Amino acid sequence: MRSIPGPIAIVGIGLMGGSLGLALRAAGVADVVGFDPDPTTRDTAREIGAITRNVDTLADAVAGATCVFVAPPLGTIVDVVRDVLAVAPSECVVSDLGSVKHSVIAALTVEERTRFIGGHPVCGGEQSGVGAARADMFGGATWFLTPTAESRPDLYQRVYSVIAATGATPVAIDADVHDQLMALVSHVPHVLAAALVNQAAATAPSGREALRSAGPSFDDLTRVAGANPPLWADILRANASAVGDALAQYRQRLVEVEEALQADDRQALIEIVAAAAEGRRRLRTQRLAGASDGETWEITVAIPDQPGAVSQITTALGHGHINIADLVLRPGPPGGVGEFVVCVDGAATANSAVECIRAIGLVAHARVL
Amino acid sequence: MRSIPGPIAIVGIGLMGGSLGLALRAAGVADVVGFDPDPTTRDTAREIGAITRNVDTLADAVAGATCVFVAPPLGTIVDVVRDVLAVAPSECVVSDLGSVKHSVIAALTVEERTRFIGGHPVCGGEQSGVGAARADMFGGATWFLTPTAESRPDLYQRVYSVIAATGATPVAIDADVHDQLMALVSHVPHVLAAALVNQAAATAPSGREALRSAGPSFDDLTRVAGANPPLWADILRANASAVGDALAQYRQRLVEVEEALQADDRQALIEIVAAAAEGRRRLRTQRLAGASDGETWEITVAIPDQPGAVSQITTALGHGHINIADLVLRPGPPGGVGEFVVCVDGAATANSAVECIRAIGLVAHARVL
Repeated sequence: MRSIPGPIAIVGIGLMGGSLGLALRAAGVADVVGFDPDPTTRDTAREIGAITRNVDTLADAVAGATCVFVAPPLGTIVDVVRDVLAVAPSECVVSDLGSVKHSVIAALTVEERTRFIGGHPVCGGEQSGVGAARADMFGGATWFLTPTAESRPDLYQRVYSVIAATGATPVAIDADVHDQLMALVSHVPHVLAAALVNQAAATAPSGREALRSAGPSFDDLTRVAGANPPLWADILRANASAVGDALAQYRQRLVEVEEALQADDRQALIEIVAAAAEGRRRLRTQRLAGASDGETWEITVAIPDQPGAVSQITTALGHGHINIADLVLRPGPPGGVGEFVVCVDGAATANSAVECIRAIGLVAHARVL
Repeated sequence: MRSIPGPIAIVGIGLMGGSLGLALRAAGVADVVGFDPDPTTRDTAREIGAITRNVDTLADAVAGATCVFVAPPLGTIVDVVRDVLAVAPSECVVSDLGSVKHSVIAALTVEERTRFIGGHPVCGGEQSGVGAARADMFGGATWFLTPTAESRPDLYQRVYSVIAATGATPVAIDADVHDQLMALVSHVPHVLAAALVNQAAATAPSGREALRSAGPSFDDLTRVAGANPPLWADILRANASAVGDALAQYRQRLVEVEEALQADDRQALIEIVAAAAEGRRRLRTQRLAGASDGETWEITVAIPDQPGAVSQITTALGHGHINIADLVLRPGPPGGVGEFVVCVDGAATANSAVECIRAIGLVAHARVL
């Protein structure tokens, strides 16, 4: 692993910001500067070792930083990101830890986008606050990054390295694709769970409460219901368009079930449940897969000297479900052709990676290390 | 516990029928006769001790039985119940273990209903078949019973005693109420889970598969998806009306979320999630409650000599969430007034029980034992 350049700043030190600090300190980052509007939080963060310095203003936090992670409550994230970009050094990369990405990027100018790479570590916990922070929060987790065509490749490489140091797997993804996926696999499930609890709580035919008859399947479906109402209201609002679309599609799937019931169409019902069985099987199989054959392959791509190329390649690999073990950028002369090198595990993954890169019109070569 | 009169017959020996046999044998029932259309299943059932005798025909199984439990696949349950009622002795009570109740009762004549008490033990397992049967299947489980106005009180008392011997808690409930509740807490959750998996499996923006981004909340929501497609198709069909109604109501709840998203109504979204938090809290609290103060109370009800009274009392107590620890019927002279005695745990429960019974116009007295 390449050494992490410091200092790194964390703005907003709750569960995620605090865990990031602990993880970076555990990875050997010497200087982690922290700012939080709450002075007590700043003090606690330093006491538990999540930061090495606490400062009183946002400007002090980002002054001299090479990398700033913004992790305030989701509802304020756009404003804080813009505040940070306004005072951060021009060579500093700014990222965030919010669970919705399009709305942040859409709020930035083209210039701001060259220095901002959105991020979303897919992990967390029941508790909140810096007191619940832990250094192993990100180990093995997917950490989505949403570079854009404007993102500076060197800044992307830097934030990639810092994130990889936490133990997370950075995965590049288009911001809109990210938001659509999160709508479906996270935000809609929370809505479905809440709606089911609320309907059961409101149902008591002849006085017999539905909630009192709840068994294991109801428990499974509703376990995530009701967590942190203001936070979830803000998550849903930040991703309103994608969540609304997914819910409308979902309602249509329920209508199909209702129509099959009305028609007493046994075969249609069997097919709906059987398709779900196949989906669950795929989900399990994909998780078991991904074991490497032990060989690391290096894929070298000749890239033109334009900012969008690295974002395009890593996003293509992310969409193609290819985990990047390491990533090196070798810029060419100004206006010339540079090299971009990604490392992956196993020959099969290397072949898939080469195909993904060729599909976007670039030349890639793979070799085993 | 009163001794269980034998022989007891089990018709259809899968996971549930086999477990019932094991539980009854463990409770000391001397004679458990079993019939299953598959001879190998019958042999296995006797080998594992789920039944003491296996017979070759349904008529042989029910001949001389005091109590018959029908536990075939749900799709055939109405036919098998009617076949059993056609050959069962007139003094024999017939029950079933199906998870939907209205459709069975609706298929019976008034005379058949005097001898049939529908049942539904709320338990089960991932596996199926008599090989997976276990004696402790019913321990602590709710076992719904759906007596009707036509049910003979002595037969209800008998099936109640047999079920209590398995370790289950018998709870009387109106068949339609039962089906509405099961639609909401079990059948709809299975539909929601299947629809969510199917939507995720069909979603792959820019090639990035939604299923591959699934995290813990998606797992929770979809754990029950895809189980046994033909069985679940039949469960949904058997409860088509209640499931269809619940799904339509549920879609309306999703529309409310979509409208709040479109209006960017943060307060409405917070209220929806907060209501779910409150529902989950009630669910947990109700499960922790129910601890008795150690005293058993006996509630005596004077009942007119008419079949419906006992069903009416026990169903009222079931709807009122009052667990009956024991139940004794003391018939009066023909045409006269008899006594019905139920035992409950704790003074508070006894008071609630008396209120429930008085609310349906009967006189009840409670005393501590």
